[in-house]
Amino acid sequence: MSDSRGVPGAVGRVNLAEPLALYRGGVLREVEIAWERVGELREGNLLLLFTGLSPNAHAASSTADPSPGWWEAMIGPGKAIDTDRWCVLCMNSLGSCFGSTGPASINPATGERYRLDFPALALQDVARAARAALKELHMPAPQVVCGPSLGGMSAQAFVLQFPDLAPNLVLISTAMQARPFAIAIRSLQREAIREDPAWDHGRYPEDVEPVMGMRLARKIGMLSYRSPDEWLERFGRDRVAGYKPGSRADFGIEFEIESYLEAHAERFVGSFDANCYLYLSHAMDDFDVAEHGDGDIDKALARLEAEQALVIGVESDILFPPAQQRDLGAALQRAGVDVATSILESRQGHDSFLVDHERFAAAVGAFLDKL
Amino acid sequence: MSDSRGVPGAVGRVNLAEPLALYRGGVLREVEIAWERVGELREGNLLLLFTGLSPNAHAASSTADPSPGWWEAMIGPGKAIDTDRWCVLCMNSLGSCFGSTGPASINPATGERYRLDFPALALQDVARAARAALKELHMPAPQVVCGPSLGGMSAQAFVLQFPDLAPNLVLISTAMQARPFAIAIRSLQREAIREDPAWDHGRYPEDVEPVMGMRLARKIGMLSYRSPDEWLERFGRDRVAGYKPGSRADFGIEFEIESYLEAHAERFVGSFDANCYLYLSHAMDDFDVAEHGDGDIDKALARLEAEQALVIGVESDILFPPAQQRDLGAALQRAGVDVATSILESRQGHDSFLVDHERFAAAVGAFLDKL
Repeated sequence: MSDSRGVPGAVGRVNLAEPLALYRGGVLREVEIAWERVGELREGNLLLLFTGLSPNAHAASSTADPSPGWWEAMIGPGKAIDTDRWCVLCMNSLGSCFGSTGPASINPATGERYRLDFPALALQDVARAARAALKELHMPAPQVVCGPSLGGMSAQAFVLQFPDLAPNLVLISTAMQARPFAIAIRSLQREAIREDPAWDHGRYPEDVEPVMGMRLARKIGMLSYRSPDEWLERFGRDRVAGYKPGSRADFGIEFEIESYLEAHAERFVGSFDANCYLYLSHAMDDFDVAEHGDGDIDKALARLEAEQALVIGVESDILFPPAQQRDLGAALQRAGVDVATSILESRQGHDSFLVDHERFAAAVGAFLDKL
Repeated sequence: MSDSRGVPGAVGRVNLAEPLALYRGGVLREVEIAWERVGELREGNLLLLFTGLSPNAHAASSTADPSPGWWEAMIGPGKAIDTDRWCVLCMNSLGSCFGSTGPASINPATGERYRLDFPALALQDVARAARAALKELHMPAPQVVCGPSLGGMSAQAFVLQFPDLAPNLVLISTAMQARPFAIAIRSLQREAIREDPAWDHGRYPEDVEPVMGMRLARKIGMLSYRSPDEWLERFGRDRVAGYKPGSRADFGIEFEIESYLEAHAERFVGSFDANCYLYLSHAMDDFDVAEHGDGDIDKALARLEAEQALVIGVESDILFPPAQQRDLGAALQRAGVDVATSILESRQGHDSFLVDHERFAAAVGAFLDKL
């Protein structure tokens, strides 16, 4: 497999012509959406990709941006999402902070950042913004709508609101709604941020973020992104270099697992706006397919026109456990979609789609090849 | 089953005559241990009970203190730990804050609280303090040594150091050493406390504790004390009363699961000293049976003289998963102990021993009845 740095691509931002009416009420004006395209657009080859909570629109390298993207191993010539065939369009979610309008953007009504004045955000709005951006970009209806994790929820929000625009679905490590354990984890992440005095009710200065809260939030998240068995295998009870028994070091880093969490927190801090994190995290808890059917999932999904769907889960996922993908696959099937549900044996938990390329490439590639 | 309020008991504190040499080095002087006895001491009927991280020595009611104890459902006349037969002696762990010497106690050398000047604490020291207290109280060797969670590790530390004093063991929801997932959770709890500006490197005033850190620590702990399935059943996606869709309420409490976590945090704050929490939490990560055998568990356990052991785990425990109880049971068996390993189907996770009385009473009662 060659790399995709030579694949034709484009990077841009699009201003939505119309104000965006929001799912929970209210309207956003002067909305901008950052997008990135990898591969050439041809008849019936558009794959719309929604992202997880924290990635930007740079899913893979192309002539437009030759640096590796967050799903580089999956997207490129000859890869699972083969750019010789597919044109991948990835958008930065509404509410995020990588070029799309979100709480860190300037509110045109005040000239100040929105911060907590940003209206209540739902993943249905992420989907609506993507729909409007497609229109603005004069893009055709996607052939495939794909998303992992939060992106899988955004993809569901897209197909529920625009059923005629999503003939085929790839839903990865996601669910029709969050369960209380996942809500608890995200609630604690949000609480860690909100309790950081530097957060200051969202009014932290542009260049000074609530570091402590963001560090803790990332580490709490890491508890759910990987799996206990993977950590047991990788770290066991290894101590960091220089550890001496009895040296408490004021309860600082002593075990390798602590050093690993620290390294992840270090990389995260400064890379994501805290208020944007709160909005997107909450939107994930808020999302519920059943809301589109007066509390009934089957009624909600009855509107679907999708033909085929791939639903992938991972045995070791504790954030979106495999039972939730089985439920999703079964519900889509009842709605008349031809569904393949695949529960992979990856040991890396929820984040497997970012690291266990072999298993994911095989499953996604096989599905796309059949289309 | 009658209650145990009329059962003869005693409550006291004992000053250790000798300075306590610590497992990781150093010596503690003028050590005091708080203890509580339920039932009358007779020949061969002493059951020594170690506690989990946060309970005090008041395991059950008696004439000495008729209020319900933390294991009230298990201890009393006709109950699983039948006080008509057994005399239960429960001690507040060294390092804790309910009468036993710990970081919140006055350092006799300075007249000030120890705080972080308290020496490195190991569960081996909790066991040593208990051994010294038994001696000081002129108590005979226990017939049974019992402990849940951290208490099960203290019980193992006791039998490893005083093998002739523990003929029978009841080890509940515990392990021979912590795995990295459990270490990660406790590390984050400690970090939340340490990052609270009010913690002030352990120098918070006596009556002002690091509330934010302790609240977060408790909630992070709750992620591991129960089970995702129990929460799914109990809370689902229920919203709190008064919830309106789209009312973000500044990311405050919206789901019932969040309200539940909040209630637990409320009860915890003010009930436990933050520095004591750090020391005991770290001691739990630090504990490793293998250390007593140059890294080899079987070599460590070869010294045991115990005759019978009951090892209990719970299917839904994610903090000390059942594989760890199976490992412990198998290792004790290899060491020549007659072991019954019982993995219960309780859905309440690690905390099941505090709430699923029916299953635990049956298992513990059956074991003790055979002795």
